[in-house]
Amino acid sequence: MEQVRLISVKKGIDAENRKVAADMRAKAASNKTLLVNLMASPGAGKTTLILGTIAKLREKVRIGVIEADIDSTVDSEKIAAQGIKAVQLRTGGCCHLDATMVASGLESLDLNSFDLIIIENIGNLICPAGSDTGAGLNAMILSVPEGDDKPLKYPLMFSMCDVLVVSKIDYLDKSDFDLGLLRQRVLRLNPNIEIFEVSAKTGEGMNAWAQWLEDRVHHAGAPPTTDRTAHSI
Amino acid sequence: MEQVRLISVKKGIDAENRKVAADMRAKAASNKTLLVNLMASPGAGKTTLILGTIAKLREKVRIGVIEADIDSTVDSEKIAAQGIKAVQLRTGGCCHLDATMVASGLESLDLNSFDLIIIENIGNLICPAGSDTGAGLNAMILSVPEGDDKPLKYPLMFSMCDVLVVSKIDYLDKSDFDLGLLRQRVLRLNPNIEIFEVSAKTGEGMNAWAQWLEDRVHHAGAPPTTDRTAHSI
Repeated sequence: MEQVRLISVKKGIDAENRKVAADMRAKAASNKTLLVNLMASPGAGKTTLILGTIAKLREKVRIGVIEADIDSTVDSEKIAAQGIKAVQLRTGGCCHLDATMVASGLESLDLNSFDLIIIENIGNLICPAGSDTGAGLNAMILSVPEGDDKPLKYPLMFSMCDVLVVSKIDYLDKSDFDLGLLRQRVLRLNPNIEIFEVSAKTGEGMNAWAQWLEDRVHHAGAPPTTDRTAHSI
Repeated sequence: MEQVRLISVKKGIDAENRKVAADMRAKAASNKTLLVNLMASPGAGKTTLILGTIAKLREKVRIGVIEADIDSTVDSEKIAAQGIKAVQLRTGGCCHLDATMVASGLESLDLNSFDLIIIENIGNLICPAGSDTGAGLNAMILSVPEGDDKPLKYPLMFSMCDVLVVSKIDYLDKSDFDLGLLRQRVLRLNPNIEIFEVSAKTGEGMNAWAQWLEDRVHHAGAPPTTDRTAHSI
């Protein structure tokens, strides 16, 4: 089992954080490493999606993970148990990650050694949407049990993401969640967003998601098709 | 249908907020009105629990609701459709409620006219735990699909609540959620917390929860059994 490195981090000052984020994006692009900022509510299945993605891509892509939690290492231990290098950031109460915190994590993960680094943000649909982590790709999960009305209530998060993974679709038969309505609501906020529907439990949809992400990894050094920085406030 | 009043609110200054919270608690106690601060992740079922509680108690208790959302009125419209007075606070991006915001809502809900006012906080397990709303009772929901590990990851929220409602127990058969383990983890953080298990869909557990809340309403003017203010940071 890989050893988990635990790092306590503090929020950066706004202006400084913007510079750290821009530098990180430039450095990752020149290394052709894709940094993915993965956001969601508590319990939407972030760690489970990361584990499922690792299972699909580990033979083709060198993967590292930065986990963030207020005060635990449970997630990074699950990642490390798969033999994947994981760094745990302890935010000590802070409700989101910023680039200054991520930079602390990257001190333990040499960019040259990874094609893909997934950053699991704090479980929160609000505060992470307002902070630039320096990632090249902003991804979010919405789990079916949370309901299809979430784009109405957390519009900034749905607006600033490049990709939405609708998780736990194995719960659809127990729920009144309307996938068509969800798509309408999301696309009204963000016409360019990619949407995947997956169940990590049954494996449904995981191939399509993993293939799309792998394609993004192979284009990590290419100029972004949209202006990434415009997504951050 | 009751008319929804929409009020845009801003965060108070910390020291001022503590005074507003203390004044609000004193005024509510002298009016024998119970103010309940209801917190949970996005999609855990806050509005659904409020609607179920209204159905159980509306003949016995005069209920008002303060809804908070970043930028929508969908929840307060559902409450108002039941003929219950609802005020919608629009926090404009702010990730939690404070007493200054709640006080703005109470300007439209005369305390003398209500035995119970339920304040639905922003969907967030982190930031609301650090802010005093002035409520006399702090309640949280954890839904089964979120997982039984949440007390490990959001300890402050579980520590500062008087009552935990475990919701969506009709999902237990699709989940590896361990109710016994959840109880252990919660009680280790907070030995005095009350725990209820409910399904608003099947109605299971709703009578016990509503009866407990009704008892708390009837003791709203009594001195608190624990120091409420110690729960706020």
